[in-house]
Amino acid sequence: MRFVQFRLLKDTIKATRIGLQKKSGGIVDLSDALPNCHSMVDALTKLGGNGLIEIARKNLANKETSSSKCQLLAPITSPDKIFCIGLNYKDTCKELGFAPPVEPLVFSKFSSSITGPFDNIDHPDISTEVFWEAELAVVIGKKGKNLDTTTAKEHVFGYTVANDITALDWHKKNGGQWLLGKTMDGFCPIGPSILTADKISDPHKLAISCRVNGQVKQTSNTHQLIHGVYDCIAFLSRFCTLLPGDIVLTGTPPGCGGFTKPPQFLKKGDVVECEVEQLGIIRNQIV
Amino acid sequence: MRFVQFRLLKDTIKATRIGLQKKSGGIVDLSDALPNCHSMVDALTKLGGNGLIEIARKNLANKETSSSKCQLLAPITSPDKIFCIGLNYKDTCKELGFAPPVEPLVFSKFSSSITGPFDNIDHPDISTEVFWEAELAVVIGKKGKNLDTTTAKEHVFGYTVANDITALDWHKKNGGQWLLGKTMDGFCPIGPSILTADKISDPHKLAISCRVNGQVKQTSNTHQLIHGVYDCIAFLSRFCTLLPGDIVLTGTPPGCGGFTKPPQFLKKGDVVECEVEQLGIIRNQIV
Repeated sequence: MRFVQFRLLKDTIKATRIGLQKKSGGIVDLSDALPNCHSMVDALTKLGGNGLIEIARKNLANKETSSSKCQLLAPITSPDKIFCIGLNYKDTCKELGFAPPVEPLVFSKFSSSITGPFDNIDHPDISTEVFWEAELAVVIGKKGKNLDTTTAKEHVFGYTVANDITALDWHKKNGGQWLLGKTMDGFCPIGPSILTADKISDPHKLAISCRVNGQVKQTSNTHQLIHGVYDCIAFLSRFCTLLPGDIVLTGTPPGCGGFTKPPQFLKKGDVVECEVEQLGIIRNQIV
Repeated sequence: MRFVQFRLLKDTIKATRIGLQKKSGGIVDLSDALPNCHSMVDALTKLGGNGLIEIARKNLANKETSSSKCQLLAPITSPDKIFCIGLNYKDTCKELGFAPPVEPLVFSKFSSSITGPFDNIDHPDISTEVFWEAELAVVIGKKGKNLDTTTAKEHVFGYTVANDITALDWHKKNGGQWLLGKTMDGFCPIGPSILTADKISDPHKLAISCRVNGQVKQTSNTHQLIHGVYDCIAFLSRFCTLLPGDIVLTGTPPGCGGFTKPPQFLKKGDVVECEVEQLGIIRNQIV
């Protein structure tokens, strides 16, 4: 199943709705089936991933709304945590000449950086070095602490595509802390949907790519991940309690513009597409 | 006014309630006056800081519940953002031999690290270098972006006390990113209440201190702040939209255990008290 958050274009109050995206592109609205759930995070918190899937299954055959009548939103908004893993592709470490990190290298973005899969992103006036990082993102479905690699798997609700947009100039300033360069408004587009974990036989065998104005900038496969999805989750759960709706951005393959020679930065008008096999494409224009 | 979040001890479902703490210590329960507000963040989001204060004012004379029947919770839970400012006291920079940062040095904690003003804090098994950092914390009351120092002032809802607990060993590992050493469960006790901004004539003239097992470890005054409260808020708002309930921890004075000679770390059984003039004391035992 592919879970989405969306708005009906005709809805003047612009309420966030939870739905299922069908193969046709049409959306089954789950609002009536989830009367007390105001968002995906809320639904995952109140029902758990499995509870949510059960309700969705009972409503699979409901009437579809045409995608032309909907605006897709980020499938997760206002999570407790957005974890990001740095330098987590073997081919990226090779590109940059870095030794692969022994443990996941963790940083974060604030929830306020999340934006929709097809939203425009304002180029921040305070940076001249904005670039892309296509990533596989994991959505947590169940509360957990001190998980091991095996139990971590049970805490994955599903997967989505993310662009870990970065302002390299701020990434280098700020006492070496990456936060400011990572968390500007709009710097975390995700979507277009969350594909539930049962539909992915192995998250470490997915093609991943990024295109800017149609030109391929990144192309690799998640088999290049140094610390796999479950290893990352287990590691993170040693530090803090994972909560339903938390997101883990698992790292980016070679070719992100900040580290190519010469560097390549985004300018107003550029269109960035990030794609992960089975999960779809997010497409954002810098404005 | 002093806003608190609390639970009634006799309440088996342990609902979070919003209240006002009176001089007597007793609490005026605002639950009935705020029927659709599930938390302080929710109330600030739905009503704005001024709207919340207006409702509270109308209920000031309501019946008090004795503090012995209540458990105080952190006055803010699940904010969108916890900003932390590093190296922000002149006397701390002098202690450490660092030049004062030209701009605020920003890092973060996740919301899941927040705990109550008198809660026990589990000593993490994965660190042997846990220490204290008493801080003045600012609570944002109104959404804002690209504020200047003057307009920033209007976005402050109030002030509270925080302990920016840190695991120095993890602060040094993780590729130099401080996040993991800052965000373990329980590493952000705050409270006991939020004193509204109108009750503080100048947030840059407040005594601040920390005691461990009764022994003074930190003692200074917020006039030592390098980047003042409004400067920090204006700076942060250039990067991301500030939201109601966001918290800014403004930095710590000299004497935090990680950087004394020799270093001093917390062990199970230790009791840490952080105090800011007018705002009160938070007291947490490490267990």
